[in-house]
Amino acid sequence: MPTIQYTGRPGVLDLSWGHPHPDALPVDGWAAATGAALRELGWRALTYGHEAGPVELAQWLCERLAVTDARAPVPAEVFVTAGASHALELLSTQLVEPGDVVLVDAPTYHLALRVLADRRAELVGVPPDPETFGETVTRLRRAGRRVALYYLVPTFGNPTGASLAGDRRRALPAVADRLGVTVVEDDTYRELAYDGPAPPSLWALSGGAGVVRIGSFAKSVAPGLRLGWLTGPPALVTALAGRGYVDSGGGVNHTAAVAMAAFGRSGAFARHVASAVERYRAQRDALVAALGAAGVLSPVPAGGWFVWLAAPGASALLPAAEAAGVSFVPGRRFFAGGGPDDHLRLSFSMLGPADLAEAAGRLAPLLRAASPPPS
Amino acid sequence: MPTIQYTGRPGVLDLSWGHPHPDALPVDGWAAATGAALRELGWRALTYGHEAGPVELAQWLCERLAVTDARAPVPAEVFVTAGASHALELLSTQLVEPGDVVLVDAPTYHLALRVLADRRAELVGVPPDPETFGETVTRLRRAGRRVALYYLVPTFGNPTGASLAGDRRRALPAVADRLGVTVVEDDTYRELAYDGPAPPSLWALSGGAGVVRIGSFAKSVAPGLRLGWLTGPPALVTALAGRGYVDSGGGVNHTAAVAMAAFGRSGAFARHVASAVERYRAQRDALVAALGAAGVLSPVPAGGWFVWLAAPGASALLPAAEAAGVSFVPGRRFFAGGGPDDHLRLSFSMLGPADLAEAAGRLAPLLRAASPPPS
Repeated sequence: MPTIQYTGRPGVLDLSWGHPHPDALPVDGWAAATGAALRELGWRALTYGHEAGPVELAQWLCERLAVTDARAPVPAEVFVTAGASHALELLSTQLVEPGDVVLVDAPTYHLALRVLADRRAELVGVPPDPETFGETVTRLRRAGRRVALYYLVPTFGNPTGASLAGDRRRALPAVADRLGVTVVEDDTYRELAYDGPAPPSLWALSGGAGVVRIGSFAKSVAPGLRLGWLTGPPALVTALAGRGYVDSGGGVNHTAAVAMAAFGRSGAFARHVASAVERYRAQRDALVAALGAAGVLSPVPAGGWFVWLAAPGASALLPAAEAAGVSFVPGRRFFAGGGPDDHLRLSFSMLGPADLAEAAGRLAPLLRAASPPPS
Repeated sequence: MPTIQYTGRPGVLDLSWGHPHPDALPVDGWAAATGAALRELGWRALTYGHEAGPVELAQWLCERLAVTDARAPVPAEVFVTAGASHALELLSTQLVEPGDVVLVDAPTYHLALRVLADRRAELVGVPPDPETFGETVTRLRRAGRRVALYYLVPTFGNPTGASLAGDRRRALPAVADRLGVTVVEDDTYRELAYDGPAPPSLWALSGGAGVVRIGSFAKSVAPGLRLGWLTGPPALVTALAGRGYVDSGGGVNHTAAVAMAAFGRSGAFARHVASAVERYRAQRDALVAALGAAGVLSPVPAGGWFVWLAAPGASALLPAAEAAGVSFVPGRRFFAGGGPDDHLRLSFSMLGPADLAEAAGRLAPLLRAASPPPS
């Protein structure tokens, strides 16, 4: 039984893990924030917390989102969660009944597919094109199916690194609202924007109706804290706070939440994110440049942790790649029910520039062999 | 929007809250433990944790349970949770299907009833008498019902403060195992034993088969941490660790878990619990003595936080009690579907001895009037 989830493999530069760089975790800063919250709030930092989260964190979050998004929530629109995965579990418990259809982007975050499948929903992949989305909902409803929600990662997405284009960003929530389908927007990567600000969230563009946006401190601060949040309609926040489990235990991660409020208010959060952005931008640049130098054309994600490479037969490439000392996630795992075997996901989060360049050098010959240049 | 869940009411000595005494929360100790874990483990305290919980906490827990229970688990039997309420939510998601029957003790912890009801189970109250329990299961199965689990708080129980007697403690898990019904044992109050050691858990008596025992640090250390654990069959631990939500987010409260391991290993946990036991024993004694001095016969709970008083028409007493400046929870709330209105629950956890004596003095005349002595 180990301490952490990550397990390294000797000799393999493993670009399959969407985990933070060890040096990007604020070891001293978190001890200081915890100490500050305990000094400031005393016993109130340790007793049962307010069900929707402590006011200190909700208020600071509203201020932060006024900077990083196009619309700031009010505290009544905020529910503090025990991480983004917990938020998705909680939302699916609240919104999805067994046998429902859950629509998901194609491709999308592969472990979100597992969270949703645990609810015994049928997952149907649909790209975030408003017209296709609307047609799919209509077709499913004609067949007597209930469509519970639409899940996507529209900003610096996992696995593609891409963001939904502006016209679709505006149209999609409008169509979903008209059809009465809740959009669940996984906005985990908003703080990791490398080439200018992140685009406005679907939640902001929707005016707060019909979209629930999941945020997280896992990428911006530290995943082990298991601390995240969501913004959504006040009635949903009230419903989540009223679940028996939340009423019984109080705020779902109270002590970490008040420590994060201290981390935010002290300025440590902003400094830490700025430093993480520098780090991950440099890592992205190193990976993209090394791939390019080795003859592999790569998209340049404007944020987040992932590069999505065209790679015909990606699954079959994996054993050869691992034999060459590099690993990745085959792209078809990011589709509900499996998808085309023509891409792979590289994560540049865990390794420094030199390791990423070496990894690109190991991978590129295999990719070039798999995709011969057009003759 | 407040910081914490508790809301005080001016002029009311409120014995309805099962919350810790503010002075019993280890404000300095928790800052020290968090700092120690971060110094010792560095980035590994902050990244995604092992799904079932970090080995450091699992091992320490096994050592602690060797002292406080009749059987110590091995780490493969331990799953670290985000509190006892989270454990019950997680177990009900794993074990209960909508429409199932969930058996619950009568009376039992009222908010557990809400957690289980959220799963759309039908709750059926049955006392922990092995014969009645077995007959109830058989009757329900004959009627075509699936019985998902049996929930109870058999040690220093909520709301009664009582513990299941030795002969039933041994027989109940045996009957449940023979019938194939999982017993979910809420063992939240084990550390708060005032008159000698707590009785062995049902989990320990069962030899580990057919019983899942929920433990918590909410009463022994601090509820705001949202940290607990369960002991159960290794196959269940593996199944919980394999849920999409846990695979996606890693250990459900990793940083708090490694800090708790540091708190435990340093000796701070044992010292803190010893001090909390002294405090709560003095509070229990003050309440029971003041009730007795005012002519109200009270049971003397050997652990936990609650006194369960006979009080005919308890619900109707509540407004008069609050007008007199004291509050409680009417007993019928602790029964699935409502129960007899003949008891009330007093919690002695939040108030010091003088306040508890004053509260007893305010309440006793009402109780005496409601239960005239036999003529």
